[in-house]
Amino acid sequence: MTNEAPCTEECPVHKTAKIIEGKWTTLIVRDLLGGKKRYSELQRSLEKISPKLLVARLRLLEKNRLVTRTVYPTVPATTEYELTPLGRQLEQVIASMSAFGKLL
Amino acid sequence: MTNEAPCTEECPVHKTAKIIEGKWTTLIVRDLLGGKKRYSELQRSLEKISPKLLVARLRLLEKNRLVTRTVYPTVPATTEYELTPLGRQLEQVIASMSAFGKLL
Repeated sequence: MTNEAPCTEECPVHKTAKIIEGKWTTLIVRDLLGGKKRYSELQRSLEKISPKLLVARLRLLEKNRLVTRTVYPTVPATTEYELTPLGRQLEQVIASMSAFGKLL
Repeated sequence: MTNEAPCTEECPVHKTAKIIEGKWTTLIVRDLLGGKKRYSELQRSLEKISPKLLVARLRLLEKNRLVTRTVYPTVPATTEYELTPLGRQLEQVIASMSAFGKLL
């Protein structure tokens, strides 16, 4: 890792920071690392997030190809979210954040 | 790392996410991992950040005990920022973000 180059859009730290910007995105990924989750499970785990923001963050994760959304034709419809193989690669990022957080 | 517990303020991932929230904080830490930097060097490296936001983010890093600020009585005054030992512990977080960013 070099720290000498000026920070550009091409910097890989910058790219990741943009993707996990905001604590909620990180915490959604954290939850999904445990396996696929229904929308209601995420809402329950992240109890302080507003439904609007949770949907927005999930959409952004989908757009960034980190999460897939599957809708089952139950009544009412059930929606499940799951990390893609790319999304699962965030595990090391989350694990190192967890290790750091224990120092605080 | 367990993903089963509901996310609380005590979750170490949550604590770290709150500290590195926003891409600029992450990128300032990235720059400082290369050694102490003058304010002007940070401004130059993070060329798209506004001076007001850069100062705010540095203040937050100071408040969180991740960065120290040293003012030298030159004319004009020179201000240097340096990671604390705790701040340097973020290296693994930044390194894993860098590795992930290369997959994007």
